[in-house]
Amino acid sequence: MAPAQPSVDLNSEHPAPSLDPLFRLMSADLERVNALIVERMHSPVALIPQLAGHIVSAGGKRLRPLLTLACARLCGYHSGDRHIAIAAVVEFIHTATLLHDDVVDASDLRRGRDTANAVWGNKPAVLVGDFLFARAFQLMVADGSLKVLDILSRAASVIAEGEVHQLMTANDTATSEEAYLAVIEAKTAALFAAASRVGAVLADRPDDEEMALERFGHNLGIAYQLIDDMLDFSAHEAELGKSVGDDFRDGKITLPIVIAFARGDAEERAFWRRTLEAGEQAPGDLERAVRILERRGALAETLARARAYAGAAIDALGCFPDSPLRRALAEAAAFATERAF
Amino acid sequence: MAPAQPSVDLNSEHPAPSLDPLFRLMSADLERVNALIVERMHSPVALIPQLAGHIVSAGGKRLRPLLTLACARLCGYHSGDRHIAIAAVVEFIHTATLLHDDVVDASDLRRGRDTANAVWGNKPAVLVGDFLFARAFQLMVADGSLKVLDILSRAASVIAEGEVHQLMTANDTATSEEAYLAVIEAKTAALFAAASRVGAVLADRPDDEEMALERFGHNLGIAYQLIDDMLDFSAHEAELGKSVGDDFRDGKITLPIVIAFARGDAEERAFWRRTLEAGEQAPGDLERAVRILERRGALAETLARARAYAGAAIDALGCFPDSPLRRALAEAAAFATERAF
Repeated sequence: MAPAQPSVDLNSEHPAPSLDPLFRLMSADLERVNALIVERMHSPVALIPQLAGHIVSAGGKRLRPLLTLACARLCGYHSGDRHIAIAAVVEFIHTATLLHDDVVDASDLRRGRDTANAVWGNKPAVLVGDFLFARAFQLMVADGSLKVLDILSRAASVIAEGEVHQLMTANDTATSEEAYLAVIEAKTAALFAAASRVGAVLADRPDDEEMALERFGHNLGIAYQLIDDMLDFSAHEAELGKSVGDDFRDGKITLPIVIAFARGDAEERAFWRRTLEAGEQAPGDLERAVRILERRGALAETLARARAYAGAAIDALGCFPDSPLRRALAEAAAFATERAF
Repeated sequence: MAPAQPSVDLNSEHPAPSLDPLFRLMSADLERVNALIVERMHSPVALIPQLAGHIVSAGGKRLRPLLTLACARLCGYHSGDRHIAIAAVVEFIHTATLLHDDVVDASDLRRGRDTANAVWGNKPAVLVGDFLFARAFQLMVADGSLKVLDILSRAASVIAEGEVHQLMTANDTATSEEAYLAVIEAKTAALFAAASRVGAVLADRPDDEEMALERFGHNLGIAYQLIDDMLDFSAHEAELGKSVGDDFRDGKITLPIVIAFARGDAEERAFWRRTLEAGEQAPGDLERAVRILERRGALAETLARARAYAGAAIDALGCFPDSPLRRALAEAAAFATERAF
């Protein structure tokens, strides 16, 4: 008789990492952020709250403002409400970026709903994005910290630079891994880093804690974006509320492509050049792309890189004493790379 | 024998008002603003200076930064270089607005050249606009005045609101004069007002001077926009580097239309509804629109209103002692309404 298979789930001692502990610890603060967001996106021009509400309420995870709240608390900030306002700023900047990015990408789904620009047109999406961006600065001015203004205005300019840089690498299969990393450092990691770092600024903590949180956010942001790029070729659309194949259709050169192109044979490279550079895509091409990516180990390699960045994010928390909140932030970093499954 | 006609030009004692005196007085400062603009729009992402340079160097009159420079000097600011940086901020905010507005309007000419989005596409125009907007805030943060940040971030949010408001009144011939004025107060006058007001802030002058310059800029901005809207039906394209009929083709409801609609008969109203609401335009419609506007005195009435606002702008300068600079600013306001001829 064969030995009995273990009947317990081998992973039961290490349940899948989740964002839940972080959300639970921060739920009271996050509710106040949501209320402030609704209040501050009000305008007598009715289309503004209508359109902004569409994207703000679209079930986003509020990951970036959550980082601001949690990092402020981790640094012992308890003297006031400034973290609520600055978390709202972070979400406004992010939302403005999404609105402008949607104009750009013509992607059909974001967070499982029609994009604002699909519903209302490019024109209002751009202008409402501008409004939210300006509102973000007004909130910071009311807060009154030039240091917070400095960190977040620099992030905003780096994000815009990264988005333009991404345009210039689009459709170019010769994009190097370095160029790709420079793009995602700017367009994604910069805001994660700034959102985390300002937590230490609010709590008036020394530079080394500021820099530790900047590193935490930076590495988490890269891990998050790598997984996002991977999921574009592997997610179940209904589960993630994100279109599969958007990046492929847009000719975006993401890490899975960079790796597969480097490892590919002449026939595969011709395929990438036709579909991504020339933009000639036929039915079945997305499926073929996924098969090549899997054959070349490009998705697994992307996941491995993401895990390394998530590990670096967790390490950056080392200078803070152990606490439920620190554990929740570390688990959020682990979750970023496991949400694929 | 008939009496001899006067051989002298009746206007010779009052030559046409011009921007020249203001430019002459401010030329050294303005050159430094131009140099700072070039320096601060630099980015390792080559497309950014390329595209931003297209619009920044496109022969724009730099009217808004000129207001900041002149108002700072009028208030006796001579202690440093802050007016140079803040004037560049004003121009960056204006340029970002133009880039985003061009995405929107699909107008073919601006300042006599192809629009950036016609040359590079909407996508880069939106993102480079975001970059310039973020750069503007970085410059203000470096300047370090929360008051300047407050005035200009509020203006930026009002501008975005006004642009969205304008979208909502587009194609609606029932737009009231009040609604139209609310739109141009937001989308044009707010930045003129803020650009002027910050001059007094830099010089640390009392509130009444701040408010006087705010009123000056506000009224000048409205006069300027009224003439702009009028010129859309009467300018010589080559002279002004602006397409005639852009607003008409876009179904924008400007003051000439509001007036002509109110004064029009049933047949004319049907014409406005067909061309502006239904957007059904045929060859010859623009010419017919101009004929109706002239018959109803709508262009002359718009000009008269503009002159009243320009007069209010000049009056607002009354609290400052007479000087060549004050006279040059007053002449600039007079020029705003006479540039039509």
